[in-house]
Amino acid sequence: MNPPTTAPMFRERSGRSVDFLRSTFTEVSGRFVETDLHAAEPLRDARDICTGGKHLRSLLVHIAADRPAGPAPHCDIAVAAAFDLLHGAFLILDDVFDSDETRRGRPTVHTAAGNRAQICYGLDGPTASADAAHYGESVAVLSGAAALTGAIRLIADSGAGDATTVALIQLLTDAAGLSMMGEFLDIHYSLPGVEADADAVRTASCMKTSPYSFGAPLMAGALLAGRDGHTAALREMGSHAGTAFQLANDLQSVFSPSSRTGKSAAGDLALGRATPLLTAARDTGVRPDLEAILAGDGPGGLQRVRDLLHSCGAVDKVIRRAQDDLADARTILDDTGALPSPEARRAFSAVLDDIAESLHV
Amino acid sequence: MNPPTTAPMFRERSGRSVDFLRSTFTEVSGRFVETDLHAAEPLRDARDICTGGKHLRSLLVHIAADRPAGPAPHCDIAVAAAFDLLHGAFLILDDVFDSDETRRGRPTVHTAAGNRAQICYGLDGPTASADAAHYGESVAVLSGAAALTGAIRLIADSGAGDATTVALIQLLTDAAGLSMMGEFLDIHYSLPGVEADADAVRTASCMKTSPYSFGAPLMAGALLAGRDGHTAALREMGSHAGTAFQLANDLQSVFSPSSRTGKSAAGDLALGRATPLLTAARDTGVRPDLEAILAGDGPGGLQRVRDLLHSCGAVDKVIRRAQDDLADARTILDDTGALPSPEARRAFSAVLDDIAESLHV
Repeated sequence: MNPPTTAPMFRERSGRSVDFLRSTFTEVSGRFVETDLHAAEPLRDARDICTGGKHLRSLLVHIAADRPAGPAPHCDIAVAAAFDLLHGAFLILDDVFDSDETRRGRPTVHTAAGNRAQICYGLDGPTASADAAHYGESVAVLSGAAALTGAIRLIADSGAGDATTVALIQLLTDAAGLSMMGEFLDIHYSLPGVEADADAVRTASCMKTSPYSFGAPLMAGALLAGRDGHTAALREMGSHAGTAFQLANDLQSVFSPSSRTGKSAAGDLALGRATPLLTAARDTGVRPDLEAILAGDGPGGLQRVRDLLHSCGAVDKVIRRAQDDLADARTILDDTGALPSPEARRAFSAVLDDIAESLHV
Repeated sequence: MNPPTTAPMFRERSGRSVDFLRSTFTEVSGRFVETDLHAAEPLRDARDICTGGKHLRSLLVHIAADRPAGPAPHCDIAVAAAFDLLHGAFLILDDVFDSDETRRGRPTVHTAAGNRAQICYGLDGPTASADAAHYGESVAVLSGAAALTGAIRLIADSGAGDATTVALIQLLTDAAGLSMMGEFLDIHYSLPGVEADADAVRTASCMKTSPYSFGAPLMAGALLAGRDGHTAALREMGSHAGTAFQLANDLQSVFSPSSRTGKSAAGDLALGRATPLLTAARDTGVRPDLEAILAGDGPGGLQRVRDLLHSCGAVDKVIRRAQDDLADARTILDDTGALPSPEARRAFSAVLDDIAESLHV
């Protein structure tokens, strides 16, 4: 998805959150480098992942806080940064689980650390490659866990007022817990002996991404601005937007050139991940052909999978479902006062437009 | 180390924290099992790790809170449980990093999950063993990250008062960050091309365990009881006790039968971990012999390593250093009023006695 073209004020605030996140990494790195210079390398890799991308989550915090023109208060800047950092933590861990070697065209944290172990730190011999991979994964897991902890710490230090701070930490940990459970189910459903039905796959897929990417950042923005009464509507709106977003990602992971998602287009396929798109196709007559290709026995590879997903109606089904969710999100946006200003409503509408745009595959 | 034999009141409170932690796992498991029954298995494995052991950290919270006789308030119970849960999170992750298959005589979380993947969930074929290991490690990493998040959540939900809650979360995240950095350095110093000096190894070793095991739980207890003015003395006392504790663990990992530490006695040696004990020996004339055995080229194995560590004076050096730290901790205990009641002072003194006892190898 492209960055929203409207909402320059909220974009600018999101940019300030990213700057703050970057300076926090610099500060932490400076502190730990006093203990050991080597600490700088994984921190730099983690910083690049956590400050890269489109900063959707910090943008949503600022949209939902919906402050008047002028500089946003520091607590908004810090809490929005926390959600971008949480996203970075999950990307770092996700890449370990999926054994992905690149993200956004650069080595993943575990790949970069593993490469250093072999090139710079003398790992050689018959088990060097496996040892380097294990070292790299260990470093990435620590980086991800530290980023997760850091996200909570940014909120604790945000100065948002003690009661609000506690509520924000409850929000973030709720969403993080759901994401980790969704990730577990995602991995679990990829085992050959586990057959999950379409509902279970959709639930797991949404748990993994939607609450921490949409519902929690939107509710956090409202809490920051003291509009606690809006959180229920924002949770509901975020749930619909997040579901559509996840379905769009699911489509993109199969249909976009890898340059667009920044990871291998066939990654989920190669891992046998049970995505809603694949599950929808498995419920149709193309299942035997699809299974044969996914098992590496059938001809055609990715292009043939794409053709099968189109011909069996799975693509249309997923697009329709995402469009329904986007329509529900728009209804809530229009009918409730959850986002008070027209600027904030336009900005969130632009986010929905981007999701709708990315459904065209 | 054996459980302290005095301090039954603080032991009983620590037991209540463990009961609360167990019931929290049951509650969370019930919630997630509604989504998928499979979620119960890793949660049960993580629960067994997190509620097992000697509950040192929850005990220290209760000792430092030093409440009068009678039931401790819920906030104490919950915050003490959070520190035991944090410890469980690090054990789960540590076992992944060290590729340990057992802990306290039972399969580690990643080993149990990997076994299930092969036995119950149909992983077979030429890559089954590697795939199962990767699945197991992924599940364990998620379990560890979830336990880390859960520890913070227990504090957020503890009802300790908003300002205290925020301060407690800052305490815990500070200590957790140091532990993760110490763990990174520990892993990093094991690479063949990285030579760390004795000071660096000792610093990393202490960062990994001491702050989250001693300083933070002690300070948390004081904050819970509103004795904020005592945190500086408790931090200092915890730092000395934690250093001695870590040195004792270091000795135990080489000299105790594996039944006592619950993991392979030669684990750190096999991994080439740069512990303070090994680093002290490397600074002496036995270095060539030691390196040869650690590289698998020398005769004698573990018993020969033990003999070398004794004969070169490294064991005595580590014991003396630990005894110095224990003496410093006792001085602070006796000279400051950081633990107000004689019962609490006796209970902490018993913890120090247990550390001293475990230095006899």
